[in-house]
Amino acid sequence: MKSDLDAIMQASNLDALLVVGHAEYNPPMYFFTGGGHVSHATLIKKRGEGAVLFHGDMERDEATKSGLKLIPYSKYDFDDLLQKANKDAALANAMRYEAMFKDVGVTSGRVGVYGTYDVGSVFGMLNALQKLMPEIEFIGEARENSVFMKAMETKDEADVARIRKMGKITTEVVGLVRDYLTNCDVRDDEVLLKEDGTPLTVGDVHSKIRLWVAERGAELPSGFIFAQGRDAGVPHSAGTPTDLMRLGQTIVFDIYPAESGGGYYYDFTRTWSLGYATPEAQELYDQVKEIFDKLNDNFDLNAPFRNYQQMTCEYFESKGHKTPLNTKAPQEGYVHSLGHGVGLNIHERPFSGFTAGDDHRLAPGVIITSEPGLYYPEKGMGFRIEDTLWVRPDGRIETLAEYPYDFVLPMKKWKK
Amino acid sequence: MKSDLDAIMQASNLDALLVVGHAEYNPPMYFFTGGGHVSHATLIKKRGEGAVLFHGDMERDEATKSGLKLIPYSKYDFDDLLQKANKDAALANAMRYEAMFKDVGVTSGRVGVYGTYDVGSVFGMLNALQKLMPEIEFIGEARENSVFMKAMETKDEADVARIRKMGKITTEVVGLVRDYLTNCDVRDDEVLLKEDGTPLTVGDVHSKIRLWVAERGAELPSGFIFAQGRDAGVPHSAGTPTDLMRLGQTIVFDIYPAESGGGYYYDFTRTWSLGYATPEAQELYDQVKEIFDKLNDNFDLNAPFRNYQQMTCEYFESKGHKTPLNTKAPQEGYVHSLGHGVGLNIHERPFSGFTAGDDHRLAPGVIITSEPGLYYPEKGMGFRIEDTLWVRPDGRIETLAEYPYDFVLPMKKWKK
Repeated sequence: MKSDLDAIMQASNLDALLVVGHAEYNPPMYFFTGGGHVSHATLIKKRGEGAVLFHGDMERDEATKSGLKLIPYSKYDFDDLLQKANKDAALANAMRYEAMFKDVGVTSGRVGVYGTYDVGSVFGMLNALQKLMPEIEFIGEARENSVFMKAMETKDEADVARIRKMGKITTEVVGLVRDYLTNCDVRDDEVLLKEDGTPLTVGDVHSKIRLWVAERGAELPSGFIFAQGRDAGVPHSAGTPTDLMRLGQTIVFDIYPAESGGGYYYDFTRTWSLGYATPEAQELYDQVKEIFDKLNDNFDLNAPFRNYQQMTCEYFESKGHKTPLNTKAPQEGYVHSLGHGVGLNIHERPFSGFTAGDDHRLAPGVIITSEPGLYYPEKGMGFRIEDTLWVRPDGRIETLAEYPYDFVLPMKKWKK
Repeated sequence: MKSDLDAIMQASNLDALLVVGHAEYNPPMYFFTGGGHVSHATLIKKRGEGAVLFHGDMERDEATKSGLKLIPYSKYDFDDLLQKANKDAALANAMRYEAMFKDVGVTSGRVGVYGTYDVGSVFGMLNALQKLMPEIEFIGEARENSVFMKAMETKDEADVARIRKMGKITTEVVGLVRDYLTNCDVRDDEVLLKEDGTPLTVGDVHSKIRLWVAERGAELPSGFIFAQGRDAGVPHSAGTPTDLMRLGQTIVFDIYPAESGGGYYYDFTRTWSLGYATPEAQELYDQVKEIFDKLNDNFDLNAPFRNYQQMTCEYFESKGHKTPLNTKAPQEGYVHSLGHGVGLNIHERPFSGFTAGDDHRLAPGVIITSEPGLYYPEKGMGFRIEDTLWVRPDGRIETLAEYPYDFVLPMKKWKK
């Protein structure tokens, strides 16, 4: 939570934070600004003090919405700096940063650097700034353990309400897709047909998903997954748009809509088979569902998240599948980790992989995904079930958006 | 153009390029990959050789679409590196990069660093990598003059066709918004009404714009502008969603849809006044239109872009407005620069500001915006007209999507 930030800075021995980049689609900046169209913002926060947002003059209205203390870039005469820097733009930029740091009273100590932005220009600027301000040590923290990832790890009730709302939109859209698919006519060769009698493609379904999410005012990162058959067997294959939709194929449908402007995400997956399922697919689905349920029964407040990766691997290995427990980077079987935190980042702390530290725990206030899966691209099938769960302060684990777990979706106008 | 890259690298004395970040929404990476859902990609290109794309195993299908030479991260045993690095994740990451650089044959020389990504983790990794590979000098170029911005500056016919297609979508949506607005009922107090008889808000119009762009398979960055009255007078104010739509107010409508996944943009602005315009607004609009037309008549192949900023400032000053020519960071009058290149970045070379170098020219193959405007927030009005123009190889300047320049839009169900 934001209120933890000063304590986390202290624990990480950081005296100030520098955040660069857009106020939107940039989690560390959004964490302070709450979004807004401020394109080339800079934020400096001294430990124990409020953050100061630097912004272009044309974007003063958008910057004001943040409620932060503002300083417009026009305070610093860039043309003049450019002259002083002998037309070296990187140096002039560093000189402007020097003036900005001085204006907020940061002239020494350890300063962490954050934000999603053009890495090259920031690297060049910091190298020049380091020479201008030798008393400051600029720190590039590994993302997973940065002060922001730690401060974002636990959510307050207002954050949870926003994520829950994204969950509601997610399950509404999933329900619409389900209704649309199960109402389709089916050709003799088991291909689904659109209203106009032509075959329904995976790309058609992608378009509908995008539209239905947009209609609800949310945004859908383009990597969402609605993948059939072999593509379902490759965890991050988005699906082949030209593929025709068919009965009896596994469909992995993994979507993670976000608030407009780069706010909170929800993460959700179901696996479906239209009309019927092959016995082998049904058996594998049942295994995924069994461990999914077992995990829900076993999640415990404050337990290390990776314990459940261990439980999942052991379960799947007992059923004869490869897993990361005893196979390096398996390409089939259970090939990923169990889940991750969800918030302003689609993937954030706590993490569940075997290399995640002991401090990645189901602490009160974290929001995680649980997403066991099985992948057999050579067999043309894949499976994943995923909900987003809130570890409530009272220790109860709550699914933030309920949705049924049916695997076979009966077709309204088709019978086996 | 991509074919210029090796020559530009040579001119900038760079032996290799390192690009980090997602394959989408990341122009330098997209320039090579053409998009695709590869989340944590790394690309290394040695001068004179093809680029190599490093990717996670789960994203191998998406990575394959790039057509580049691929190496999966699983080739490098991160757990092992983490042990060797004594659990220092930044060092282990740097050791992985060291192995990757060695695998593509880069062990010395000047290496430029690019990409939109978490700046802190890259800064930390590069500092560690610099110690492991002291024979390499890592370079952070200022964005405006980076090799990528130079290579992207001119477009080939295929690029132009894609931008033109975005222009068609843009003007279709602008036409739909115009039709929707002019068909509204109007209340006695000149507020527009929705179909259900309640007032139409700026936010309602924003939603329609988002939806109509999404229906056409394009993406609309959330900073698009549909702003009325005072907000129209602040160039980058996106508009206040709760404001009611009214007759006789200036409306600045600036949208820049992009291809899905972070591809090519189109940039476009019109200024409207519904039903009628005040005489003062009409006069100011006419001035903007006059210089807009004059610019179109004067754009010359290979002329420095900033010459037209000069022309625009001189024109507006002759009409009594403040401009950057003689006022530092004016808050009213003509407050910005004339235009910018458009491509995989919404703002790219060539630039037109007075600090832009002499090499920012209307060279054959560049695509620019021309967008003069006037801003009077205290008077509650603002104006901007913008088209996206292609400097054709034959020297002709072509507007890539034609759309009328009417200022006053007559209302179908209302008369003054």
